[in-house]
Amino acid sequence: MIMAIRQGRYTLLLPTMPSIHGSGAVVGKTEGEGPLAAEFDYIYADDTIGGCPSWEKAESTLHREAVIRAISKADMSPQDIDLIMAGDLLDQCIGTSFGIRELEMPFLGMFGACSTMALSMALASVLVDTGAVCNAVASTSSHFASAERQFRLPLEYGGQRPQSAQRTATAAGAAVIAPHKQGTPCIEAAIFGKIKDLGIKDTNNMGAAMAPAAASTIADFLHDTGTKPEDYDLILTGDLSKVGTDLLLELLVKDEGIDISSVHADCGLMIYDLEQQDVHAGGSGCGCSGSVVNSYIMNRLKNHELNRVLFVGTGALLSPTSSLQGESIPAIAHGVLLTSGN
Amino acid sequence: MIMAIRQGRYTLLLPTMPSIHGSGAVVGKTEGEGPLAAEFDYIYADDTIGGCPSWEKAESTLHREAVIRAISKADMSPQDIDLIMAGDLLDQCIGTSFGIRELEMPFLGMFGACSTMALSMALASVLVDTGAVCNAVASTSSHFASAERQFRLPLEYGGQRPQSAQRTATAAGAAVIAPHKQGTPCIEAAIFGKIKDLGIKDTNNMGAAMAPAAASTIADFLHDTGTKPEDYDLILTGDLSKVGTDLLLELLVKDEGIDISSVHADCGLMIYDLEQQDVHAGGSGCGCSGSVVNSYIMNRLKNHELNRVLFVGTGALLSPTSSLQGESIPAIAHGVLLTSGN
Repeated sequence: MIMAIRQGRYTLLLPTMPSIHGSGAVVGKTEGEGPLAAEFDYIYADDTIGGCPSWEKAESTLHREAVIRAISKADMSPQDIDLIMAGDLLDQCIGTSFGIRELEMPFLGMFGACSTMALSMALASVLVDTGAVCNAVASTSSHFASAERQFRLPLEYGGQRPQSAQRTATAAGAAVIAPHKQGTPCIEAAIFGKIKDLGIKDTNNMGAAMAPAAASTIADFLHDTGTKPEDYDLILTGDLSKVGTDLLLELLVKDEGIDISSVHADCGLMIYDLEQQDVHAGGSGCGCSGSVVNSYIMNRLKNHELNRVLFVGTGALLSPTSSLQGESIPAIAHGVLLTSGN
Repeated sequence: MIMAIRQGRYTLLLPTMPSIHGSGAVVGKTEGEGPLAAEFDYIYADDTIGGCPSWEKAESTLHREAVIRAISKADMSPQDIDLIMAGDLLDQCIGTSFGIRELEMPFLGMFGACSTMALSMALASVLVDTGAVCNAVASTSSHFASAERQFRLPLEYGGQRPQSAQRTATAAGAAVIAPHKQGTPCIEAAIFGKIKDLGIKDTNNMGAAMAPAAASTIADFLHDTGTKPEDYDLILTGDLSKVGTDLLLELLVKDEGIDISSVHADCGLMIYDLEQQDVHAGGSGCGCSGSVVNSYIMNRLKNHELNRVLFVGTGALLSPTSSLQGESIPAIAHGVLLTSGN
């Protein structure tokens, strides 16, 4: 019985190929007006998410909805879930804990900022591969208004953001990860990243802060597995958006001699139409990659339009307090190899 | 090859018995004046933790120190660590990420509030047992002044707290968990808890909010393993302190017919002398159980004064925002079975 084999220094191969039995992606109004509208499970009419009395409660509702949809699409109920791994951007991860509290599932709280979808998928797939857990949920959420209020200013203030700033997506994504099932997208490898901090202090330029972490994890994964960019249909980053994407491509060429430009895409650039929508440098927030991976990507793995996707979620591990104290922004990137299975 | 066997609905037995190769516990001044002073690795002279310019930076320094001491006591270096699982109470877990950012270890961020030590030990031991990870670190921290400022009021305000309030310990704990090694304390089982919320809204009474979660996890563990309280030298809760401990004992008898009073102890009641020190209902904070387990408990497992300790860490998953919005306090408890090994 072979499982969770470490390859190289950082990568874990998952020979049992855990499958994604169900995935859920629900979004807010702006995301529902973007190019991926047809991919999502549900688009809320406005950012109150069905009339919730606060943005935080709206995010919790969004989170719960994604989890319930993923579980139900997997033909399971919360009672079938052995462990849910989840987190979000809000202080003390209340988007998650208040969202799932009635569901009575064993819960492992995570914090990876915007890398949470990749982090939770990586951990869930490792635990399923090793047999420690049978049915796992990986999930995350974010909300434009709850994030703005917490990290920048309340919307009512009408603050201006520079063009390098990203828009936190009002979105949630969830995946039910369980033992291999034929004809279902799988996770064949996972990698947990290291913190990278190159001294960026501009909280309106998270893409630049996160690009070095993405470069490090992608380079480690390719090195560990002895693969090249052309071995993937897509190397998909979490949400570097415009500024961060340019930097990532440059860093990988300059520092590692790796050119991923022909296979690279970024969830933050996919979820919105940057020409038509007023979203500055693109999307961000845990729910950005959470919803894109659990809709558009999953749909294309199912119909074999995509077969091998290296998904690397990126997170900026700052807080408003650390930035006010003059600190730079540490970042991290975690990854999973998603395949169309067999 | 047998590993990570699920017993009952919630419990994972770890037949390879991963060992705690090294543990670190460092604390602030008040904790160093308490009854466990002789147990800690290092006591800082004041809560600036060596003159740090902010309480948050002080907490990060404390966290790093515990991690470095644990790794060094395990005769390892950060380069030997495959994965560190860690978190804390601060917004976006900055105590952790800024503390360990230079150490270049793959990092899995966790959020379990004050249950983080039990949560990270549970996950680390499962990952080591299954062979997914060889050398893991589980760590956490908390700081009285950074927590007061964030959850209640800055110390400078001089606010009064009721007697039911607990004191957040200025403390950090870390454990290096790696494959079984003779003569070293082990982890033989792990359990991930479910969120329990019985509607408590008083943020100055976390013990009451957390007691139901502790009762649920202890009852699940005893039920899953077919064991009784007398099968343990100690059933140790994270930090329920005075109010929560009374409630836990009562809840377990009333709802489950289980009397743990003869073997129960609580880290929040151990770290301070409630008669002599002005700490209200006792200690709390991630670092409370983090430092007690990684000093006093580990020392007694080593000399076989204790042989079987069921450690259940409890966490209150609230944020200041959720409480201001009138929400109740969801809580969770995770557990590990610590043994003296062989």
